[in-house]
Amino acid sequence: MSGNRRRSLAVGVLGGMGPEATVDFMARVLAATPARVDQEHIRMLVDHNPAIPDRHAAIAGTGPDIGPELAAMARGLEAAGADFLVMVCNTAHAYTEAIRTAVSIPFVSIVDVVMAAVAEYPAAAVGIMAADGCLQAGLYQRALAAAGREALLWTTAEQQRFMTLLWRIKAGERGPEVRAGLQALAASLEFAGAELLLAGCTEIPLVLEQGDTGVRLLSSTDLLVRHTVALALTPTIQQE
Amino acid sequence: MSGNRRRSLAVGVLGGMGPEATVDFMARVLAATPARVDQEHIRMLVDHNPAIPDRHAAIAGTGPDIGPELAAMARGLEAAGADFLVMVCNTAHAYTEAIRTAVSIPFVSIVDVVMAAVAEYPAAAVGIMAADGCLQAGLYQRALAAAGREALLWTTAEQQRFMTLLWRIKAGERGPEVRAGLQALAASLEFAGAELLLAGCTEIPLVLEQGDTGVRLLSSTDLLVRHTVALALTPTIQQE
Repeated sequence: MSGNRRRSLAVGVLGGMGPEATVDFMARVLAATPARVDQEHIRMLVDHNPAIPDRHAAIAGTGPDIGPELAAMARGLEAAGADFLVMVCNTAHAYTEAIRTAVSIPFVSIVDVVMAAVAEYPAAAVGIMAADGCLQAGLYQRALAAAGREALLWTTAEQQRFMTLLWRIKAGERGPEVRAGLQALAASLEFAGAELLLAGCTEIPLVLEQGDTGVRLLSSTDLLVRHTVALALTPTIQQE
Repeated sequence: MSGNRRRSLAVGVLGGMGPEATVDFMARVLAATPARVDQEHIRMLVDHNPAIPDRHAAIAGTGPDIGPELAAMARGLEAAGADFLVMVCNTAHAYTEAIRTAVSIPFVSIVDVVMAAVAEYPAAAVGIMAADGCLQAGLYQRALAAAGREALLWTTAEQQRFMTLLWRIKAGERGPEVRAGLQALAASLEFAGAELLLAGCTEIPLVLEQGDTGVRLLSSTDLLVRHTVALALTPTIQQE
């Protein structure tokens, strides 16, 4: 109607897994967008759906399959006008195929985005800080093996300690005790030889920051934020 | 399938006006929800659409009509599964009718929610802290008159000062200078006789808190948050 207008792409966000991580992602997207007025920000269509059943139980086969629900969320976001999709939860990426086959728009995998960043570091051994389901699905272990890197994991006891901290973060705890717990777990991977750490769980950056670890900590949240903003702001001229 | 499950209602959020206010609203919804695990949080379907043109210009008649765009957002949220709608922007409530006629689900007006709270205070004179378009549309002036309260407004110069602060907040400023500016504007309404203040703009609580003013400050954001959570958690038993 009013001629050509430069506009950004709309990102569809599969969220609510967990809630704080989704709002954290959105806040970081705003902070990472070079905008002085509302209209320079990017459109986010968000399905903040915390009712999605436990991901770890689903992957372990002890809970209901969540693939159909994630596919329905993806279809809903496409129908609402999303140009591409992201999901603010590493573990749920075990269902990447279910999402990709449900829609005709691109689904940007957080694992791919993290691995693109890993490629920039020469680290031979990479420590994976991730939740049970993410590890059981082998998301980062497979990707690191394909990239010729060694994946370092926690011991069973350490992994259980991480899950306890994760539930505490989800329950609203972000204090020094939880942070110290995560720091100790990060240090343990460094002690085992990790030259690079992956925060492969979007709850980790709610508590642990760059500088809390001895070696570089790659935040999957921040990497997805940066990729999302760059993709959304890819200049497109659209006929109005 | 698995029998009855207690679940919450899904709230559809017309957002992005502005972006920070929407994320602030979502964060406050999480904080106000009594949840220990993800699944106890409420579902939010969010259309974070900062591309909506300037509301003040639209209301003044100097910019494009935004009613059709808000109606389209509302319809999209209904189609996505929202059980009721809210909008995180006082000024855009000038288009309440356009939204209500577009959907068959309830649209909870922030003005109604604020006025329900005003009713709990005996204040004869109420100071309105709001943006140009909100005032030009007379949203709170009409509601206060209907409630038998006197509405106190800023002088033209003060209103211009508020708008300058508002653009600075939208540009990312939240420092002591902006806060002091808002405090001075609040004090001016108190000096004029306001016994109660309305933060009738969702950017205000990004900077100004209860305690920054001499008389009670009603935050339209917090009141909408409380109402949204209460409504969403109204227990419903649904057949699975």
